[in-house]
Amino acid sequence: MSSIEDKFKALATDNAPGQEVRQTTGNIGNLMIGDILPGTAVDFSHGDVDAFTPTPGSMEAFLEAVEIGGSQAYTEYRGSADIRDELATRLGDFTGSAISGQDEMILTPGTQSALFLSVAATVSTGDKVAIVQPDYFANRKLVQFFGGEIYPVSIEYQNDVPGAGLDLSKLKAAFEAGVRVFLFSNPNNPTGVVYSAEEIRTIADLAREFGVTVIADQLYSRLRYEGATYTHMRATELPDSQVVTIMGPSKTESLSGYRLGVAFGSPAVIERMEKLQAIVSLRAPGYNQAVLRTWFNEPEGWMDERIVQHQAIRDELVQTFRGAGMKVRIPQAGSYLFPGLPKLRVNLQDFVRLLRHQANVTVTPGTEFGPHASNIRLNFSQDHKAAVAAGVRIVEMAKRYAA
Amino acid sequence: MSSIEDKFKALATDNAPGQEVRQTTGNIGNLMIGDILPGTAVDFSHGDVDAFTPTPGSMEAFLEAVEIGGSQAYTEYRGSADIRDELATRLGDFTGSAISGQDEMILTPGTQSALFLSVAATVSTGDKVAIVQPDYFANRKLVQFFGGEIYPVSIEYQNDVPGAGLDLSKLKAAFEAGVRVFLFSNPNNPTGVVYSAEEIRTIADLAREFGVTVIADQLYSRLRYEGATYTHMRATELPDSQVVTIMGPSKTESLSGYRLGVAFGSPAVIERMEKLQAIVSLRAPGYNQAVLRTWFNEPEGWMDERIVQHQAIRDELVQTFRGAGMKVRIPQAGSYLFPGLPKLRVNLQDFVRLLRHQANVTVTPGTEFGPHASNIRLNFSQDHKAAVAAGVRIVEMAKRYAA
Repeated sequence: MSSIEDKFKALATDNAPGQEVRQTTGNIGNLMIGDILPGTAVDFSHGDVDAFTPTPGSMEAFLEAVEIGGSQAYTEYRGSADIRDELATRLGDFTGSAISGQDEMILTPGTQSALFLSVAATVSTGDKVAIVQPDYFANRKLVQFFGGEIYPVSIEYQNDVPGAGLDLSKLKAAFEAGVRVFLFSNPNNPTGVVYSAEEIRTIADLAREFGVTVIADQLYSRLRYEGATYTHMRATELPDSQVVTIMGPSKTESLSGYRLGVAFGSPAVIERMEKLQAIVSLRAPGYNQAVLRTWFNEPEGWMDERIVQHQAIRDELVQTFRGAGMKVRIPQAGSYLFPGLPKLRVNLQDFVRLLRHQANVTVTPGTEFGPHASNIRLNFSQDHKAAVAAGVRIVEMAKRYAA
Repeated sequence: MSSIEDKFKALATDNAPGQEVRQTTGNIGNLMIGDILPGTAVDFSHGDVDAFTPTPGSMEAFLEAVEIGGSQAYTEYRGSADIRDELATRLGDFTGSAISGQDEMILTPGTQSALFLSVAATVSTGDKVAIVQPDYFANRKLVQFFGGEIYPVSIEYQNDVPGAGLDLSKLKAAFEAGVRVFLFSNPNNPTGVVYSAEEIRTIADLAREFGVTVIADQLYSRLRYEGATYTHMRATELPDSQVVTIMGPSKTESLSGYRLGVAFGSPAVIERMEKLQAIVSLRAPGYNQAVLRTWFNEPEGWMDERIVQHQAIRDELVQTFRGAGMKVRIPQAGSYLFPGLPKLRVNLQDFVRLLRHQANVTVTPGTEFGPHASNIRLNFSQDHKAAVAAGVRIVEMAKRYAA
């Protein structure tokens, strides 16, 4: 069973966001410089759904579904037909390209599941897969789990440049080398940068030329800041059969507690994903699916307000880090920041543990997203004041532990 | 990509329970003998949660979790620590062998997910796996998906015998041939038969002798009828490291709409399952997890009453089928029946479609559970009167289409 042991070694979750409670403190006291930095605990590993509360009406939609009973508890594996139809119309409008709710969409228990199913449906042992660095930590793990071979392509994560700063010549070289699938998040997780129209067009052109399937994780594509323009992968000239789009109401809408995701793409790939969902989880929880009725259907002005509030937190945190000489790109969408740390006298893993134990701040190490041992990721969807105060503590800690 | 196409061909869901709405009617009219048989629609493909309603207090437990907010929305991947602790105590009592909530248990989005994760954590390409025929349809598909090689072992599905009637000499031969994992449901799905204490002891002895890991899907093990005795796999002499037990509150408790499952076993295997869950679905929906607080914690007498009601439906349906000369074992637990049909002049797939279109009755073809083209599966957790009337229509249809 050594091959299966190796397979699971590659899936290490010890430093994954949300798992910090399972870490032992170990001898962290020996490393500590200076006193405890007091302040309200802030867990930047995920958004705070108490600070930004779930969409109005979401709980009521759930309760209605419980009242409806059987027909809502047992839906098709791909999800309730009428909810898919509703969503397909709204998401077709949003992405600028029509979707058939019947054949081109699947509801999943969380966006993570949509990602898992889409990789499983397109990547087989030995397939070459291009992924971005830095990018969402599960992308790499998923490709490894299905036996794919990774071709990393970098984006610019430290300096403000137009678009994501994707290394297009490297991407082309990867496609020429036989890559079958390109998987990326847009806006990028962990940097919040958005790919430019030109970058998306070039990806589409290359994918068409080389017959590459593109999986576009667009989880945060609604939460866009002033001046950001967004191009949907599926609204390009790339044939529908070569694009899978993933979205979900978990983050921006603070609906993570319901675990809902959606994928849309060609009927063939959606059918594969449904077949697999039948043995992975059967379906997104029936009652939870009804919460999607509130999605892209929020009260007038609600999303605009949420964007303004996030932009204010973003700006103050960027100022705090840059003021201390730390490099950080300004996120154009979403609620992630990926600041760089100065050279430290402890390793990144220990610094992250020290932050938690000494400064009451939880962040995710950059190594979860690629070979980025000098960066940390923050989800700044938090109480504004507490987040900024925690940012100040991160700066102070970086000074204390600077080499 | 031909290997991935083959992989998904093996996952066909066209005849899977719950997917009937996606079947086209085709030329079913040409095959029809006689008129429509009128009657209330009964969908035996799953239990009717309107006839047997969810556990009292389940919705309230969910709502409380929404009120709690963030800490309940984002739990560890393996689920909320305090809910695991609570459950571990109650499930330890139930199974007769203590469980550590901290290290030996994972909450999953549905029992299906627990099954997926446990097979993924133990079966690798080329591994030999013994499964039972007939048994839950996903067992075979899961083993195939992970590249395992199947060794089928039969149970007695037509005649009442003591225990399940497992072919123990075949099981031993499979273990001798190098089987690494044995996967089975107890009570058996689709027959409802329960393995005897002797059968469980023999499985444990053989597994210990040959170092085989046993995955015991005990989904229905609470809903036991008069006279049934039940032996938990993990309460045998088999070392903990060789047993994974799967349960869930979805069926007996009519909580399917919440999609909750649980697996318990050795810390090593639970850790693997959690690592994989991190890329498959992250976690069981946070709010939904709270519904588990009502599990094995129901009002006094509630479960006894539910058992009595199911037993009454079981008895009347068995009588109906046997009265028409159809073979069927008497289920000792759960709510499945697996009656055999007479030789028909149409194939089983068409008969099942005819049942739906002509008699308003949905059943699952026996071929989903093994090479059982003369049987159909019914989940009789339904309105009593409607279920019995639908049983009578099945008998009438079987007569009409008898060869």
